[in-house]
Amino acid sequence: METELPTLCRPTVWLEGDEVVMLDRRRFPEERTYVRLKSPEEVAKAIEDMVIQGAGSIGLAAGYGVLLAIKRAAKKSREDLLRDVEAAGHRLIATRPTGRHIREIVEMLLNEVRRALQEGRDPFEPASRALSAEEERMRRAAELCGKNAASLLEDGDTILVHCFPGCALIYMLLEAKRSGKEIKVFCTETRPYLQGARLTATTLMEMGVRPTLITDGMTAYCLWRGLIDKVFVAADRIALDGSIANKVGTYAIALAAFHSGVPFYVLGYEGPDPTTKRGIDIPIEERDPSELFSIRGVRIAPDGVGGYYPAFDVTPPEFISAIVTDKGIYPPRLIWRYLSDPKSQ
Amino acid sequence: METELPTLCRPTVWLEGDEVVMLDRRRFPEERTYVRLKSPEEVAKAIEDMVIQGAGSIGLAAGYGVLLAIKRAAKKSREDLLRDVEAAGHRLIATRPTGRHIREIVEMLLNEVRRALQEGRDPFEPASRALSAEEERMRRAAELCGKNAASLLEDGDTILVHCFPGCALIYMLLEAKRSGKEIKVFCTETRPYLQGARLTATTLMEMGVRPTLITDGMTAYCLWRGLIDKVFVAADRIALDGSIANKVGTYAIALAAFHSGVPFYVLGYEGPDPTTKRGIDIPIEERDPSELFSIRGVRIAPDGVGGYYPAFDVTPPEFISAIVTDKGIYPPRLIWRYLSDPKSQ
Repeated sequence: METELPTLCRPTVWLEGDEVVMLDRRRFPEERTYVRLKSPEEVAKAIEDMVIQGAGSIGLAAGYGVLLAIKRAAKKSREDLLRDVEAAGHRLIATRPTGRHIREIVEMLLNEVRRALQEGRDPFEPASRALSAEEERMRRAAELCGKNAASLLEDGDTILVHCFPGCALIYMLLEAKRSGKEIKVFCTETRPYLQGARLTATTLMEMGVRPTLITDGMTAYCLWRGLIDKVFVAADRIALDGSIANKVGTYAIALAAFHSGVPFYVLGYEGPDPTTKRGIDIPIEERDPSELFSIRGVRIAPDGVGGYYPAFDVTPPEFISAIVTDKGIYPPRLIWRYLSDPKSQ
Repeated sequence: METELPTLCRPTVWLEGDEVVMLDRRRFPEERTYVRLKSPEEVAKAIEDMVIQGAGSIGLAAGYGVLLAIKRAAKKSREDLLRDVEAAGHRLIATRPTGRHIREIVEMLLNEVRRALQEGRDPFEPASRALSAEEERMRRAAELCGKNAASLLEDGDTILVHCFPGCALIYMLLEAKRSGKEIKVFCTETRPYLQGARLTATTLMEMGVRPTLITDGMTAYCLWRGLIDKVFVAADRIALDGSIANKVGTYAIALAAFHSGVPFYVLGYEGPDPTTKRGIDIPIEERDPSELFSIRGVRIAPDGVGGYYPAFDVTPPEFISAIVTDKGIYPPRLIWRYLSDPKSQ
C-alpha cells in the first residue's frame, strides 16, 4: 500500500548524516526542493518559516532537530550534551505553539536522552529508535483514523476540506475507493499560505482525484447551495471539552455547515490533548502580518497598510458533528473518553 | 467636500468624445491606468472583465455604454438607431446578473431614447442628461446612507468591512470623523479579486485611515476574539424579504457576527429591488473558475485542478441587524417599507 501513497504521505523529513533533510512545502508542487539543515536552529527556523507544516509533520521535524542536536554534541561531556540538547528542545518547542505534537515529541526524546545518560549509554541510538517508533505510530494512527472516517462516507458524497488535513484524509479516500464509494472533493485555497490550493489539491491529483478549488470565502455559499454533503477538517489540537483548534477559517466553515444542516467532522487522529481542558486554553499562534501583504512574491496590498494574522481558530463542540480518531468516532463532548478507551486493533 | 473624497469616490467612468474612459480597477492602486473603450461591446467586456466593479459603478458604466451606442448610431434612421441602442442595452444587461443597477439604468436610458425618438428629438442629449442626474442621485444616496450609518458608530469602534462597500462607507467615516468619533477598520482581502486589499485598503489610506488587513478566513476568529464591534457590508441587491446578495464571503461573516453577538449592518444605499421578492430569487453570478487558479498573474494551483466560482452569496434577514439606506435605518424584515416611505431631506 505504501507505494500508492502521494508525496506528502511519504516521509518528507529525515536525518541524513549530519543534516536534517526536509521537503520545502513552500515551493511544492512547482518544485520538489529539499532543504538541508545543519543545526537545530536551522530546523527551528524552517518550522517557523513554513518549510514544513501540519501539526504531526512539524512535530516530527522538531524530533529530527533534537536528533541533530544529540549528534552535534556527541563528543561533549554528559552535562554539556544534556544542556545542548535541552536548549535545542526548548528552542524547537517555542517555534509554533498551537499544535501539541512538537512539545510531546521533543519532551519524549528529552526523556530518552536523560534516561540513556543516566544509564551511561549513548543517547542517540535510543532517541533515534523512539522517534522512528513514534513516526510509525503516527502513520498507523492516521491510517486507522482515515479508515474509521471512511465509514461516514456514502457513495456519491461530495466532501469539503479546509487546509491540508494530513494523511488521514488520504487513507479515508483510499478506503472509500476500496469499498467502491466514489467521493468528490471541494477544497478551499486556504489563504495566506494556500495549503489547500497547493498541498491538498496536488495530493488529491496524485491520487487521481480532481478536486474543485474554491476560495475561503465561498464555503458558506457552497454549503447553502447544497453542493457539499460532509465537511472534513483536521485539528492541530483537541481540548477535553471537545473544542478543536485548526487552520484559521475552520470555525466559519463549522458555523456555515451547522446552519445548512451539513455534518462537520474532525479528523482527530490520536484524540485530545490530555493537558488542555477547554478550547479557550489553546494558544493561538499570531504570525507576522507582513506575510499577508504578498502572495508568492507578488505584492497585493498598498504600502503602509496594517495587518493581523492569527494562524488558527477554535471551533466549539456544539458545531462539530463528531471527532474521528484511531480508536473510533466520538461525539465531541465525550472526546475525553478517548483517554481511557482501549487501543483499536 | 468633494475635494477630500478618495479616488474611487470621484467619477471613475465617463464619456469623452467617442470613447468611454474607465479607471482600470484591476491595476489600481499600483497603476492609475484609464482604458478607452470605443464601442458598447468593449464596455460590456470591460464590465465582465472587472475593469470596473461595484453594483452602482457597473450600472453607471453600462449607462455610458448606452450613450456610446446612441452616439455611434446618430446618423442612422430612427428605426436602426433604436435597434442598435436596444441591442447594446441588452448586451450590457447580460454582463453581470446579480446587481440591480445595470438593468435599471439601461432600461431607464432606453425609455429616454424611445421617448425622444417618438417626439422626433435627438435622443443623445436627454439620455445624457438623465444619466448625469442618475449619477448625482446615486452619489447623494450614498452620502445620505453613509450619514445615517454614522449614527450607528461610537467613538472608539473597530468595524469590519468586506470587499469594497462603495462610497457610503467613505461618507460614513467622514461623518464620524466630523463628529469626533475615532473609528478603526479591519478589512478582508476579498479573494479572488482582492477588492479589500486593493480598493478598500487604498481608499482608506487616501483618507488617512490605516486599515488592518486580514484574509477572508480570519473574520470569524476576529469576531470571536472580540476585536470587532460592528460589521458593515454593502449589497449588490436587496430583496423585499430582507435578504441581501453581496460579495461571496458575506454570509459567513454574518453567521460569525451573529454567533459572537456583534451587530451586522448592511449599507443599503437606495433600498430593496421592488421586483425581487426573496433572497432565493436573486441570480448569483458564476464566473470562470480559471480566475481562481492564479493571483495577479502568479499560478497558485496545480495544472488540471477543477474550480467553482460563485461571485456573490445571499445572507438571510435573520443574520442582519439592520439595513441602512438613504431614507433611514430599517429592520431587515421591514425593508419593503422603504418603497413607500418619503424621501429624506
